[in-house]
Amino acid sequence: MSSNTATNGSIEHTIDAPTSRRHGHDDDQQAVREIRKLIIDCCRQHGGGHGGSAIGMAPLAVAVWRHTMRYNPRNPAWFDRDRFVLSNGHAAILLYTMLHVTGYSDMTIDQLKLYASAKEVDPETGLWTETLCHGHPEIEVPGVEVTTGPLGQGIANAVGLAIASKHLAATFNRQGHEIVTSRIFCTTGDGCIQEGVAQEAIAIAGHLRLDNLILCYDNNGVTCDGPLDWILSEDTNAKMVAMGWRVIDVFDGDSSVENIIAALRLAQSPTPDAKPTFVNIRTTIGYGTSTAGTFRSHHGTYSDEDAALYAEGISTHTLSKRAKQHFEWCVSSGESLEASWNEKLAKYCEAFPAQGQQLQARIRGDLNFGSLKSLKVRNEIQATRQWNGQVFNKLMSEVPSLMAGGADLWMSNQLGDQSKRIFDRANPQGRVIRYGIREHAMASISNGIAAYSHQTIVPVTATFFMFYLYAAPAVRMGALSGLKVIHIATHDSIAEGQNGPTHQPVELDSLYRAMPSLCYVRPADAEEVIGAWLVALSAKNQPTMISLARDPATTAIPNTDRFKVAKGGYVVVERDDALVTLVSCGSDLQHAVGAAAQLSSSGLPTRVVSMPCIDLFEQQTNSYQDEILSKSRHIISVEPYVSTIWARYCTASVAMDSYGYSGAGPANMTRFGLDASGIVRKVMEHIYHNGKDSSARRWTLLK
Amino acid sequence: MSSNTATNGSIEHTIDAPTSRRHGHDDDQQAVREIRKLIIDCCRQHGGGHGGSAIGMAPLAVAVWRHTMRYNPRNPAWFDRDRFVLSNGHAAILLYTMLHVTGYSDMTIDQLKLYASAKEVDPETGLWTETLCHGHPEIEVPGVEVTTGPLGQGIANAVGLAIASKHLAATFNRQGHEIVTSRIFCTTGDGCIQEGVAQEAIAIAGHLRLDNLILCYDNNGVTCDGPLDWILSEDTNAKMVAMGWRVIDVFDGDSSVENIIAALRLAQSPTPDAKPTFVNIRTTIGYGTSTAGTFRSHHGTYSDEDAALYAEGISTHTLSKRAKQHFEWCVSSGESLEASWNEKLAKYCEAFPAQGQQLQARIRGDLNFGSLKSLKVRNEIQATRQWNGQVFNKLMSEVPSLMAGGADLWMSNQLGDQSKRIFDRANPQGRVIRYGIREHAMASISNGIAAYSHQTIVPVTATFFMFYLYAAPAVRMGALSGLKVIHIATHDSIAEGQNGPTHQPVELDSLYRAMPSLCYVRPADAEEVIGAWLVALSAKNQPTMISLARDPATTAIPNTDRFKVAKGGYVVVERDDALVTLVSCGSDLQHAVGAAAQLSSSGLPTRVVSMPCIDLFEQQTNSYQDEILSKSRHIISVEPYVSTIWARYCTASVAMDSYGYSGAGPANMTRFGLDASGIVRKVMEHIYHNGKDSSARRWTLLK
Repeated sequence: MSSNTATNGSIEHTIDAPTSRRHGHDDDQQAVREIRKLIIDCCRQHGGGHGGSAIGMAPLAVAVWRHTMRYNPRNPAWFDRDRFVLSNGHAAILLYTMLHVTGYSDMTIDQLKLYASAKEVDPETGLWTETLCHGHPEIEVPGVEVTTGPLGQGIANAVGLAIASKHLAATFNRQGHEIVTSRIFCTTGDGCIQEGVAQEAIAIAGHLRLDNLILCYDNNGVTCDGPLDWILSEDTNAKMVAMGWRVIDVFDGDSSVENIIAALRLAQSPTPDAKPTFVNIRTTIGYGTSTAGTFRSHHGTYSDEDAALYAEGISTHTLSKRAKQHFEWCVSSGESLEASWNEKLAKYCEAFPAQGQQLQARIRGDLNFGSLKSLKVRNEIQATRQWNGQVFNKLMSEVPSLMAGGADLWMSNQLGDQSKRIFDRANPQGRVIRYGIREHAMASISNGIAAYSHQTIVPVTATFFMFYLYAAPAVRMGALSGLKVIHIATHDSIAEGQNGPTHQPVELDSLYRAMPSLCYVRPADAEEVIGAWLVALSAKNQPTMISLARDPATTAIPNTDRFKVAKGGYVVVERDDALVTLVSCGSDLQHAVGAAAQLSSSGLPTRVVSMPCIDLFEQQTNSYQDEILSKSRHIISVEPYVSTIWARYCTASVAMDSYGYSGAGPANMTRFGLDASGIVRKVMEHIYHNGKDSSARRWTLLK
Repeated sequence: MSSNTATNGSIEHTIDAPTSRRHGHDDDQQAVREIRKLIIDCCRQHGGGHGGSAIGMAPLAVAVWRHTMRYNPRNPAWFDRDRFVLSNGHAAILLYTMLHVTGYSDMTIDQLKLYASAKEVDPETGLWTETLCHGHPEIEVPGVEVTTGPLGQGIANAVGLAIASKHLAATFNRQGHEIVTSRIFCTTGDGCIQEGVAQEAIAIAGHLRLDNLILCYDNNGVTCDGPLDWILSEDTNAKMVAMGWRVIDVFDGDSSVENIIAALRLAQSPTPDAKPTFVNIRTTIGYGTSTAGTFRSHHGTYSDEDAALYAEGISTHTLSKRAKQHFEWCVSSGESLEASWNEKLAKYCEAFPAQGQQLQARIRGDLNFGSLKSLKVRNEIQATRQWNGQVFNKLMSEVPSLMAGGADLWMSNQLGDQSKRIFDRANPQGRVIRYGIREHAMASISNGIAAYSHQTIVPVTATFFMFYLYAAPAVRMGALSGLKVIHIATHDSIAEGQNGPTHQPVELDSLYRAMPSLCYVRPADAEEVIGAWLVALSAKNQPTMISLARDPATTAIPNTDRFKVAKGGYVVVERDDALVTLVSCGSDLQHAVGAAAQLSSSGLPTRVVSMPCIDLFEQQTNSYQDEILSKSRHIISVEPYVSTIWARYCTASVAMDSYGYSGAGPANMTRFGLDASGIVRKVMEHIYHNGKDSSARRWTLLK
């Protein structure tokens, strides 16, 4: 069935012994049948669903949820639970079914019945149909650890969860008092594991020796379009071994819960070199059904024959008494696990009161960054990336919840010497991760770290702004999932200079300013850098991106205010008689201020608004917005980006409409007319020639 | 020096024999010294540059450019040249130096002297300083095959070039008449190869058995931030073997040109299973200089001692007579290679006149898609992805230059059964590539295919619109490089339905509409789908993205016109007395048309503009723009995206300000108020309550 059975001598373990009789074995088989039946029921109820992989993984699910994983269905938020990530998120119905059968209170059969429904307005109540059973798992659902669906990212999330657990264990556990013990179980499929982000994350996990991570590969040899061997001919096991993983094979994954349990047990046994474990489980997509083993099984509905296959007289959407009894253990065992842990925690707090208090504060998500409010900064001209480095270093000393990492541009990001804080196998207490040249995995792993427990760790990532385009799918998932991650993006414009247009963002702000629930902030100086961190650290359920410049500012900006950053925009140069308002941010605000002085002295009274965050400005009252932006005829944005969202507020823009150039930063600003004199020239030409533009154009790009 | 010397028994060949005497050996050594000297000179001339890797790779460069690669410096565009890709593009100065020494006419020493200069205005001429020596290689420079810099992508470009060569060879070569023979040489470094896109591309190359591809790994064991073993501990060779590559080791890459030549020769010898070759060359970053072997060597300038190291009395920016003579061979051999090929081509055209004509048309870049202009489409209600599938299939039959590929959603993209056209080892004439679940590599490989020779192949990619966020760094590089690639993006909104917000773009249009030199088109029906293809196929030097809907339209749209798509926007429902203009596109235009009818009959005369491409509309004259958009007080865009760029033209938008939902497509449109009745409600509330909004807000999001 699978095209990926070549093993080339690289396999360390193979679980393939004849299935032995043991207590509960028949119950497991029955459970597998009934889970498959429920999945088929749910894919038939509204004419579709992603049932194939879910059916194939049913034995794995029973092995994980009934026999291996530590969790409490009655308290999905129990801190020391093991975490489960369905990276092949289209198989969501498997996860919902498991949450249902193991006793998660919210996941009722009525919820399952809404899987794949249209979710229209209920004609009786007039209310919109809402459900926990989305097409892909969403983090808001109790028992779902991370939102998955865009393939590959779940594996990286799981790596992040494993890092979080390792780090907290190293930080808080004491001999005989192991209060952080959670392990991470992740499933992946033939498609998911091909994604670059998955490969990056697998490399990092192997390098960091995350032996609390178990990746279960649902190797069914089929993807959406057809058989796997159409698109893959590598020796996956040998590759995983080369990347520092322990590999365990299970060949009868369709039928043997026993052997999967044994593999998972082996996966938890220590290796001398602390490797993460890859369990390669051969399965059949849609096992037993009429489309089994083919791409047709990936998505769709099932025939009456398929429905009868695992039903055995059990009616639709129900479980047998026997199956129910078999899963009752999950609740009782979960409650008892949590109760024991609570006792353990009490003893820990008694034995180590300071650490106990700190841990409990971390679990509550307390962050103490109040000193930022009064932080004094020397009145010097520096690049915002330099100011940011100073603030970051202070915060790293004061806020133990911060866990940062960079994608091999740490020194250019100017985040300081953190060599004593490196997180690695030898020092898991460390709080700075070297992600390598793997931007996408960095952001996705950080989502996983944040998802471990709200604000217990606040992850920080860093690279050049341009390379957040590599990381964009993960930044998006963090925003969609409401995960508190702080992204530090330096070299944020054509002023980056010599590297040239490949490294110079001109359109990337348009993505991040449009992305819902992401706060994109471009501070202009030290005050605003502090303000940006106040915004980022105060955010409850969203990521923040702090966008920073490479080059030192040359002009001091008056009236900047760390506390006004939270307003999104505010006046830094006021004039009651203004004909022009220049709106700018980041390292460009200095040029706007310089230009305003020249324009004012040339007879065009000009005021200046600092707008570090459009998103926050949009949340202000109408009267506040009016006060900031309605006092002049011309409202002109100044920023070396392709101006899109600015047209909401501005009559015109001094902006880019092309890619940048490989030249010195200041020369580039002059080349594209974005320094003070370029701004003055463009604004004057616009005002003295106004009216020539198309009347259709409510906004004008100044050239 | 390198942390990556463990080989685990996976190496097939090792080139490590004692260097033998042979003709030219001393000349090679001298050439290496002088190339290193030139690099150091160029990094000293303006106080910086990326010299370290370039110095380390000098022996490799001599082996490739003086002894292995087939090219003609006097005609960089010679069709059958071998292609060279510097995927670790920061080492650009190495490439510029090689173009200079081998005799590319444009790459004068005066050009090299501008490397890393500020590129300001020349005070004497008043003109901006321009140069070919950018911080990273840019495709416009003769001899540079692709723009590189964002790491990992160059490897994927090289895979694309290799596919193009394989495909054209299979299509045109005849026994005894091998007129397409180009091989692809690509270099990568310790950072470049870690990127997910590189790993995806390597997997594809191994799977497709591209034995015309040689990837040279500059294994210097150092990245920007420090030693490689900080971030990588895998067995790279074993991994490459597992991924289907032949691996050849060279351990004395700092000094032995001979052994690298031998490795490259071996790499060109056939293997029974047609594997691509990975040459793992151990080098020292900044070899010989004071920072050699450390991250400090990555970027910066060099001391006087470093400058003296390889100078031996040769003055700055010059080559010895001996070195010049050694490289004279490159021009003479190149001219002779091209002359022989021209003879070969003439014989080919004589022997196979039809194929000869076709090949020459392909080399000229002739595309014949004229039948599109008169293509009849049945007057049915279908989804735009379905119409697109019909057009695509017709084009595939008629335009042999089209070479398409999908990322495992081919059937959902509805591009039809192409099983007889699959490109693989058995059928390299095939024109449909199965890229697997590797979106980023798909787009980046397509850039390489397009870069092989302008319009000789026009690559087409396909996946869901949302997953073009995974591919975004490559789409950007295609736009920046002016490469003609056509991206087919289906499932382009919340109307996608059940998969939920992870699969539903709401902000991605903001990126692509802001991206310079990318044409983003959202056609509304069959007419406009044809119009979109006319735009895409007529484009000279830019990629196009055609954005398509999943669900069948339910309303026919009047007056759509394939030829007006090229105008960007045009009127589909006119009213001289209009108070409101609704502007929309894609599958949302039907809802705007429906809403306009209701609004007009309710006393708010409403006209409708179809705006499939904002980019093209912006290129129209003022008077045309006025005619389309200035005839009503309210101009309101209708689109289920976060509205950013629309504010340039519109007073208000019916739009999204959040992520989508997992529900049926039509239910989602109703849920978010984006169907006809939702539009009517929002527009009426806006008009009857107008004036309540902030006066600062020149544009209003209707709720």
